[in-house]
Amino acid sequence: MTAAPPPEPLATRIGTVGILGGTGDQGRGLALRLAAAGVPVVIGSRVADRAAQAAGEVSVAAAGLDPRATPVTGLGNLDCARRAGLVVVAVPWSGHAATLAPLAEALAGKVVVDCVNPLGFDAQGAFALDVPEGSAALQAASLLPGSTIVAAFHHVSSVLLNDVTEASFDSDVMVLGDDRAATDRVQDLAALIPGMRGVYAGRLRNSRQVEALTANLISTNRRYKAHAGVRITDV
Amino acid sequence: MTAAPPPEPLATRIGTVGILGGTGDQGRGLALRLAAAGVPVVIGSRVADRAAQAAGEVSVAAAGLDPRATPVTGLGNLDCARRAGLVVVAVPWSGHAATLAPLAEALAGKVVVDCVNPLGFDAQGAFALDVPEGSAALQAASLLPGSTIVAAFHHVSSVLLNDVTEASFDSDVMVLGDDRAATDRVQDLAALIPGMRGVYAGRLRNSRQVEALTANLISTNRRYKAHAGVRITDV
Repeated sequence: MTAAPPPEPLATRIGTVGILGGTGDQGRGLALRLAAAGVPVVIGSRVADRAAQAAGEVSVAAAGLDPRATPVTGLGNLDCARRAGLVVVAVPWSGHAATLAPLAEALAGKVVVDCVNPLGFDAQGAFALDVPEGSAALQAASLLPGSTIVAAFHHVSSVLLNDVTEASFDSDVMVLGDDRAATDRVQDLAALIPGMRGVYAGRLRNSRQVEALTANLISTNRRYKAHAGVRITDV
Repeated sequence: MTAAPPPEPLATRIGTVGILGGTGDQGRGLALRLAAAGVPVVIGSRVADRAAQAAGEVSVAAAGLDPRATPVTGLGNLDCARRAGLVVVAVPWSGHAATLAPLAEALAGKVVVDCVNPLGFDAQGAFALDVPEGSAALQAASLLPGSTIVAAFHHVSSVLLNDVTEASFDSDVMVLGDDRAATDRVQDLAALIPGMRGVYAGRLRNSRQVEALTANLISTNRRYKAHAGVRITDV
């Protein structure tokens, strides 16, 4: 009788996570926190050199957060999409469709996590933009017919993600999707970040309001000088 | 030198609160909690007799929750709108426009708190309905040009509101509106219910997603067998 091997740690079971738009604030912050949790992360950018530079900076910051951090790689978006098993879309809304359309083949068969918020800004603050497909996540589903789309990480403050003095997050992540295995995997991913928790919050057809709610949190931030997040109670 | 009189308690400073649709689950639950907190409450219904019956039942339940509870009155919707200084709209979405349109004069100059969620339901659960005006609260603003509209109380579980074994609520109330004095007053109203807190969450133009988010919480409730609520963190 031989002893069973120890279970593979969750961070490596998750597989390599690609982050399209990983040089922006949201993508960089997620890369930092996932790398610190031991997840292999590839930052993608339109310009591979810029991705490589960000990856180097994030690697140093992640190692400072947690000595078990994995080094981060930087690649062009297409290579990032090919390399990763699960891909987070963290590009600005203005580049959403143009970034995803050429990646349909590279992303086929993979879980794509959309955290993009289609928002406009004027003198009165932020407001939700109308998206012909219904939401950013539904646009991703339309552009990437071979991928499994999950919507998540909309409400996590990029300021707090990038603040290395913040060891833990008082925030849940609403996870939406039509495929149970995929939403479970993204909930597991969220749970790797200390203090964070992934909570299932419905099908993709209900993603518009979750994206748009970010406009409300921006209003809350202005009123209270805060970095507001959301916790779901009784769960 | 005379001593200053003691400050008027917040519950009486709020004034008489009318609840249109106060015989439904949401309205009845809010009436119960506000009456228990000492707020004078008038339940409104299309049928005055039904309002009076609900008022009697709620008065008994409120007195059981808190001996300082105020008795609840029941009236037809028009008399309820006339009597109250602040009116909560808790009718089903299907009756929203028809209830409010004839009350424009009675509600002029008053704060009207809309907590209606325009939702549809099918085999896959709840989903957000499109509203020509943009949201239930924006429809109220269009139908009641002389009133000050606030959107609030969308995510408070009516099951928990009506459960007299629940003494306290682990839930925030997102309060939206374009008039600071009105949103402050509704935040004060929410804070009268133990455990509840009113958090400013933007202008009325951002009310659609707050109403629609109730569809997500219904999905969360089904998955986790819960009565999900929302807390805003870092505020």
